[in-house]
Amino acid sequence: MTARAAVILAAGQGTRMKSPIPKMLHKVGGRTLLDRVIDTVLETGCERVVVVVGTHSPAVRQLVEARLGPGAAAVQDPPLGTGHAVLAAGSALADFDGDVMVVNGDCPLLAPEDLDPLFSLRAEGTDLALLGFEPADPLLYGRILSSAEGEVRRIVEARDASPAELMVRTCYAGMLCADRARLFDWLSRLTNANAKGEYYLTDVVSIAAAEGRKARAHYAPETAVMGADTPAQLAQAEAVFQQRRRTHFLSEGVVMPAPDTVHFSWDTRIEPGVQVEPYVVFAPGVTIETGAVIRAFSHLEGARVGPGALIGPYARLRPGADIGEEVHIGNFVEVKKVRLDKGAKANHLSYLGDGTVGAGANIGAGTIFCNYDGFDKYETHVGPGAFIGSNTAIVAPRSIGAGAMTGSGSVIVRDVPDDALAVARGEQSNKAGWAAAFRARKTAEKAARKEKGGS
Amino acid sequence: MTARAAVILAAGQGTRMKSPIPKMLHKVGGRTLLDRVIDTVLETGCERVVVVVGTHSPAVRQLVEARLGPGAAAVQDPPLGTGHAVLAAGSALADFDGDVMVVNGDCPLLAPEDLDPLFSLRAEGTDLALLGFEPADPLLYGRILSSAEGEVRRIVEARDASPAELMVRTCYAGMLCADRARLFDWLSRLTNANAKGEYYLTDVVSIAAAEGRKARAHYAPETAVMGADTPAQLAQAEAVFQQRRRTHFLSEGVVMPAPDTVHFSWDTRIEPGVQVEPYVVFAPGVTIETGAVIRAFSHLEGARVGPGALIGPYARLRPGADIGEEVHIGNFVEVKKVRLDKGAKANHLSYLGDGTVGAGANIGAGTIFCNYDGFDKYETHVGPGAFIGSNTAIVAPRSIGAGAMTGSGSVIVRDVPDDALAVARGEQSNKAGWAAAFRARKTAEKAARKEKGGS
Amino acid sequence: MTARAAVILAAGQGTRMKSPIPKMLHKVGGRTLLDRVIDTVLETGCERVVVVVGTHSPAVRQLVEARLGPGAAAVQDPPLGTGHAVLAAGSALADFDGDVMVVNGDCPLLAPEDLDPLFSLRAEGTDLALLGFEPADPLLYGRILSSAEGEVRRIVEARDASPAELMVRTCYAGMLCADRARLFDWLSRLTNANAKGEYYLTDVVSIAAAEGRKARAHYAPETAVMGADTPAQLAQAEAVFQQRRRTHFLSEGVVMPAPDTVHFSWDTRIEPGVQVEPYVVFAPGVTIETGAVIRAFSHLEGARVGPGALIGPYARLRPGADIGEEVHIGNFVEVKKVRLDKGAKANHLSYLGDGTVGAGANIGAGTIFCNYDGFDKYETHVGPGAFIGSNTAIVAPRSIGAGAMTGSGSVIVRDVPDDALAVARGEQSNKAGWAAAFRARKTAEKAARKEKGGS
Repeated sequence: MTARAAVILAAGQGTRMKSPIPKMLHKVGGRTLLDRVIDTVLETGCERVVVVVGTHSPAVRQLVEARLGPGAAAVQDPPLGTGHAVLAAGSALADFDGDVMVVNGDCPLLAPEDLDPLFSLRAEGTDLALLGFEPADPLLYGRILSSAEGEVRRIVEARDASPAELMVRTCYAGMLCADRARLFDWLSRLTNANAKGEYYLTDVVSIAAAEGRKARAHYAPETAVMGADTPAQLAQAEAVFQQRRRTHFLSEGVVMPAPDTVHFSWDTRIEPGVQVEPYVVFAPGVTIETGAVIRAFSHLEGARVGPGALIGPYARLRPGADIGEEVHIGNFVEVKKVRLDKGAKANHLSYLGDGTVGAGANIGAGTIFCNYDGFDKYETHVGPGAFIGSNTAIVAPRSIGAGAMTGSGSVIVRDVPDDALAVARGEQSNKAGWAAAFRARKTAEKAARKEKGGS
Repeated sequence: MTARAAVILAAGQGTRMKSPIPKMLHKVGGRTLLDRVIDTVLETGCERVVVVVGTHSPAVRQLVEARLGPGAAAVQDPPLGTGHAVLAAGSALADFDGDVMVVNGDCPLLAPEDLDPLFSLRAEGTDLALLGFEPADPLLYGRILSSAEGEVRRIVEARDASPAELMVRTCYAGMLCADRARLFDWLSRLTNANAKGEYYLTDVVSIAAAEGRKARAHYAPETAVMGADTPAQLAQAEAVFQQRRRTHFLSEGVVMPAPDTVHFSWDTRIEPGVQVEPYVVFAPGVTIETGAVIRAFSHLEGARVGPGALIGPYARLRPGADIGEEVHIGNFVEVKKVRLDKGAKANHLSYLGDGTVGAGANIGAGTIFCNYDGFDKYETHVGPGAFIGSNTAIVAPRSIGAGAMTGSGSVIVRDVPDDALAVARGEQSNKAGWAAAFRARKTAEKAARKEKGGS
Repeated sequence: MTARAAVILAAGQGTRMKSPIPKMLHKVGGRTLLDRVIDTVLETGCERVVVVVGTHSPAVRQLVEARLGPGAAAVQDPPLGTGHAVLAAGSALADFDGDVMVVNGDCPLLAPEDLDPLFSLRAEGTDLALLGFEPADPLLYGRILSSAEGEVRRIVEARDASPAELMVRTCYAGMLCADRARLFDWLSRLTNANAKGEYYLTDVVSIAAAEGRKARAHYAPETAVMGADTPAQLAQAEAVFQQRRRTHFLSEGVVMPAPDTVHFSWDTRIEPGVQVEPYVVFAPGVTIETGAVIRAFSHLEGARVGPGALIGPYARLRPGADIGEEVHIGNFVEVKKVRLDKGAKANHLSYLGDGTVGAGANIGAGTIFCNYDGFDKYETHVGPGAFIGSNTAIVAPRSIGAGAMTGSGSVIVRDVPDDALAVARGEQSNKAGWAAAFRARKTAEKAARKEKGGS
């Protein structure tokens, strides 16, 4: 098979996003546009990926290099058009022998099945494979003009098109695929003799045609090539993404009475037989196993939820929450980097951060794992079958033994042995009549203040 | 009036639901499909109800027997078709003299007014009353072929229909009504001489016709006979249910700025003059009285909310929460099996479980009723006018007297008399400079670790 | 320029709202219908505003007088029609020389740009300027019949219209504008010789025509003149309002993956570069500065959020929450009347009410500012760089010094000096074997109870 590479165009500044975050780092389904397009081209089997970045967003370059290695980012500086951008990737691919696909970085719904056909066209002998689409309203897009046999003759910009040409509905999505050497040869012949003084990638089509090369197009759905240049377009892409995931999970046997109120991430994994109530957000990194119930108003991120577990309502699972079989996590409970073993329960108003909770342990309402001293984090380990009384503060690092108990309202500053009871609280004293006297005094003061205010 | 009975078909395995929960126990509007259809046939005046269940789901049989008595479940084993399923109910109805209606168990939106006309048709002299509908897309459904006068001639399956017959839009919903003795006589003559080798209920139509019996159909809305075989269909039925309840409550004078974000259950009762903010879930068993305000992100179940009460945002009322007039329940507060009398307040981060709170009492932020010792639940009683200081843990069983107070951060382990103040906490000591020294030490340690890591 | 005044009709009882709240005090975008329409007419430059109120709703009159002064409310008693209502405003405007616009009080989407053209028509020499609209379904509305040149000839009620007149789509919205003296002259000639015995404002059109006065209409969008008479109409108006705000904020560079789940108020201010996750409610009085992130399930009211701050999920900011640059407010945290300076953090399960938190201070999980003694509110001041240990209750009024620390689970009842550590908790004692013995006893008791229950 011919080797495959991709050049991802990610140098646009994204000023229409009006955001301090670079466009390519905005997210759909909880994953940056940049990561999404890299995922996509890797899934098409590209063994080399070069991302063309601008100088305005060092964070984009950093992400590219962190993920793909230092050679994967090619800097376009200054920006002189799309053709110029692809040229910037030339030296990084100089030693590459095979097909190169040029892909827009800001099409968050582009899927491998939309791009694969470009390589197939190449394999069938097409010199230049173009990605097209048939938009509902083609007015502003460049038209792909083809022969009856489907051979692309040229691309005409909308402003230059004749009335007959404007009737053509096949449009060009700005992406293409060709042999590396040939593509860069065409690119080397681009000129900027146009109104904007830029080097346009589109012009390679006429250069190739002038050489008598064979060009064909594959047409993808309009959503696939939908760009995300503005917050509104980003929201539209997110809506399409979410709708697809909802349909997917329903078809996979996830029961959701109000699927439109459940939000998924790109990597959310949910097994059949899970129930998800309204208003649940799955941030990235979540796996839910069969029979679990995720109740309303829960927020999960980086968490595993085991079979038959009951989560929420109002549960927040943060990264490292590892919720075992039949564990209950209740309302206003936050769990971070804690593994809870089978049947453990933390039902009310608690913060469990850093540690473990053994099987069958019960964490009372208002429990806090005090895991931070302002400098470091420490772990709390609660043994199996332990019973943590309500409003207990456990000052980590601390171990509560198997079957141990803590008295309500205790602050636990020393380890508790197995089966022991730890109590740490003040002695209760009742002061008879104190509250009545206090009320009398306060009432008198209030009356006095009022009189003074009125006098 | 002729006596009425119903046979509910609930033996399907529901494998398309892909769920460990039997299909009939999935819910719409917070009520199982099974309970919903039983409700519906009882409302049509059926004095006898037999539910045909399979052997695969003992929980379905248990629900039937728990609700309708031991004789109400008829087991179909093995499953040999819909006609065979109805036959399984034969012995349970052997002594019944009257009309029997056969109803699909998995049509969650079926209402009494959709079924009543079948009994009316019977009363008007129709021997066999059929339930039909006119779907938007009838392609796959069996067509009801009738005379110009509305007499049903036969039902033709879509695959056997002529082009002219396929143009007919009246379809058969699989439900019917006839005299008990006659119906079971027809059923006894069914054969399984068909591709699947099953006994089809539909075939009674031709058997009756062959006898010269008069058959007519009543046509219900398509939504009424919409089945719920998959999570997606269940979600669709839920959406229709919710939309109807939202329209209903708006028309009844419930003010909701964002009605599409409010979720009701089958038995939710809300009086006119109630306000409901966005993102509120009413699980089953809730009654809200006039003038109450349910604020955003609240979740209520099995609770009564009295006139003028203020609930939420982020309030969770659980079964047995009995919220009196003008009571305030605030954010991150959970109430379970507690009655709060007029004007009581619990505004922040509290767990009130098992007990009572007297009129005008104030429950401070972070209060916990410690109601559970790992084995039993105990009650907390707070008297009228009492003031519970913030972060108080009350270890039940415990009584706080009328007008009594507790100091912030106290753990209350003995009863507090009326008008007394109870304090239970450690003495405060301030260690001068300790924090500065701690920071210096930690900072030095960090620097040392860093140096070591770098060396 | 001719002086401008407005008469707002707000005397309707609103019985169709079925609510104890007067219709004019229901809200869209968090602002009462009454305040909205007053805002609108003030924006058109009206220097005098008279609101006609009924005797049934003293709260409406109070709001008018509180906002516009004691002379601004004109009481219509008894209600004898729309013309009679405007007449009630006569004496309040007796000394006014200029144009008077009559506006319906219950059109929550009416904007200044819908009303301005009435004054413009007047300025161009029109004696009587009418507000019209072209509804999708005009059936029930009075039709405005005009000449080809746009001069209004008369208004015909739908019930009196000929078939040809019913074809006219231009309808009358019940609002108009004319010179004050002339308008009240016309009004003085109204009669109640009609089926209902009422004085109709509409009749001034024919009175003016009989005088040979020139009348023209301006046509506003149907939504602009949409009334809010019922909870359903109120919800529709709210939906239109929210959709407009969502579109607005997206276009302004606010990134929202699920804009349909974010709810704004009339005065919400959000800078470009802010991110808002799903399920966020902005009640009135909120300002969010650039780079801030508002996470899911947060509720904000009367709060400022500074640049780069991180709010939520599940954060509740109440009036007076003043959140500084890069401050973090986390899950299940409520903030009321507290200013937090740069970089301060309160990440978990806390109530911060009344006070200040210095730059870089860290508020541990479960912290409570105990600000209320049942009579008065007191302030808590936490110094910069302070570290409040988890589950600390600070009994206000109290100051925690700069760089000071508190031990977890402490109840702070005295001020803490700078850099000191304050600890206030009971000594921990571990009772060996106690928990095991307790379990044995409870298990035995349970067994005994069971045996007794069974005997």
